[in-house]
Amino acid sequence: MPLSDLSGRVALGIDIGGTNTKFGVVNHRGQVLEKGSIKTDEYEKVEDFIDALYVEVNPLIAKYGTHKNFDGIGVGMPNGNYYKGTTEHAPNLPWKGVIPFGAMMKAKFGLRCIVTNDANAAALGEMLFGAARGMKDFIMITLGTGVGSGIVTNGSLVYGHDGFAGELGHTIVKPGGRKHWSTGSEGSLEAYASASGIAITAKKMRAEFPQSLLNQYPESEINSKTVYECASKGDPISIEVFRYTGQKLGEALANFVMFSSPEAILLFGGVIKAGDFILKPTKLHMERNLFPIFRDKVKLVFSELDEADAAILGASALVWEKK
Amino acid sequence: MPLSDLSGRVALGIDIGGTNTKFGVVNHRGQVLEKGSIKTDEYEKVEDFIDALYVEVNPLIAKYGTHKNFDGIGVGMPNGNYYKGTTEHAPNLPWKGVIPFGAMMKAKFGLRCIVTNDANAAALGEMLFGAARGMKDFIMITLGTGVGSGIVTNGSLVYGHDGFAGELGHTIVKPGGRKHWSTGSEGSLEAYASASGIAITAKKMRAEFPQSLLNQYPESEINSKTVYECASKGDPISIEVFRYTGQKLGEALANFVMFSSPEAILLFGGVIKAGDFILKPTKLHMERNLFPIFRDKVKLVFSELDEADAAILGASALVWEKK
Repeated sequence: MPLSDLSGRVALGIDIGGTNTKFGVVNHRGQVLEKGSIKTDEYEKVEDFIDALYVEVNPLIAKYGTHKNFDGIGVGMPNGNYYKGTTEHAPNLPWKGVIPFGAMMKAKFGLRCIVTNDANAAALGEMLFGAARGMKDFIMITLGTGVGSGIVTNGSLVYGHDGFAGELGHTIVKPGGRKHWSTGSEGSLEAYASASGIAITAKKMRAEFPQSLLNQYPESEINSKTVYECASKGDPISIEVFRYTGQKLGEALANFVMFSSPEAILLFGGVIKAGDFILKPTKLHMERNLFPIFRDKVKLVFSELDEADAAILGASALVWEKK
Repeated sequence: MPLSDLSGRVALGIDIGGTNTKFGVVNHRGQVLEKGSIKTDEYEKVEDFIDALYVEVNPLIAKYGTHKNFDGIGVGMPNGNYYKGTTEHAPNLPWKGVIPFGAMMKAKFGLRCIVTNDANAAALGEMLFGAARGMKDFIMITLGTGVGSGIVTNGSLVYGHDGFAGELGHTIVKPGGRKHWSTGSEGSLEAYASASGIAITAKKMRAEFPQSLLNQYPESEINSKTVYECASKGDPISIEVFRYTGQKLGEALANFVMFSSPEAILLFGGVIKAGDFILKPTKLHMERNLFPIFRDKVKLVFSELDEADAAILGASALVWEKK
């Protein structure tokens, strides 16, 4: 590690997911100097989680100087609120209700802590260091266990009046459609286009088509990864699972385009490993649902950043961005 | 008219609709000093339209001083593009293709001319002089012959990368639903929640229910106004027409809220004369489709400005707002 990196100012970026929490020490140039992770779901109490994080992170603070070298901590987390520093009623986190996460972190670490939702952090990472460099208007869609989103218009993240803007995974793409296992809503994008949604679609379809390669796996192993494996082997049912998913996603994206007219939509997260199996139908159904003035204009691209890095980079950038 | 108004700087605001074009001379304080209108649809050629406008407007320019008192012309029009000054492929205008409206106006009037879409202009009018004063995040939905929208986040209109953001009337609320008479899309918000959409719903429903008061009118008189009259008289079929319309509108609004998390949604245009017949079901279905963190937060309100004034005021404000 060159001395210039060690002596410069740094921030800590933290990406909190339902299962894992990843963190990194990041310098001004967007270099992740050091990384680590802990399990999110091992800590029933948020206090215990913060204590465990402190144990892991404090040695890094010591290594990269003292507190005065650390400009602060940026956190991307489900339902994270930029204005209040809270996370509120996040279905995928073990801690229920409204949690003043930023204030708790500040009390523990003695450093300012900026919070936003995980997809916003990833969008910021892409804007500063990834596929959205130089763009002023784009939408980031994260397709993981859930579906998240970060929206940038005119060069700024859209937070909305309460800090919760950009919950596109919960928008309804099929009124009266598939019931969401956690929110109870009917026909949300997340119910179809998340890894969990894809698994549901795959289980339904393999039951209808006994000849599908998907039937070679036990129920517990049906997920977007095994569906991809079967699709790669030419299984038409698995290909249809992604086509159907892409249709629902593309219909949703068309509506998003007609809202904010982005230059690009960035897709991000585990589901995009399916590549063209999902990208092509998504693009087709996005285009065909667009009002003509929007057609053939919007780039639909995969994220360029390593998934964990994007959120860590974006979270750390929060520290430098917030006045 | 006090001398202070006559001596101050003024701008011309123009609101171009498919049928009528309204214009007004507006001062800095948002006072409409003079108003007028011409028919849009009487001019097959845009050149003739601009000539006719010039004949009407020139006396006003003379009355309110000289060109040097006039800061410019602001125009709200369907598919108006803020960046390019064009209107492009607007289905409701008589002039087809891409029209460099701003440049043509400038050539004729010798004044700078800023163009945006009509709903954006109305939203700007509401933000400066109407129900959205002081708000930094709101969405304006215009429910007229068509459904338009203007979106404000963080105090600025959302134009998107190409200037066409905010075409919420064309978002799909029911995939595979009612075919739009002009765009051909299936299940767009405009197909249900515009005055034209309401007339279609009413015609369908009165055919199913011979006892409806709606059957006392000839086909040509079935419109949102007559449906309102029948609903006011207690006709359950007419009440159901608005309930169904409100359901579709409310479902769409829920999706919009999860996009930009506005403080309020302003409804505007002829359809809102139906009052609670449409407002109550809209609110109910918006709330029930919202992800919990958004519930009971978003004000759903009717515009406070006179319909023509809002767009004229907003259009004139474009002149002073644009750098």
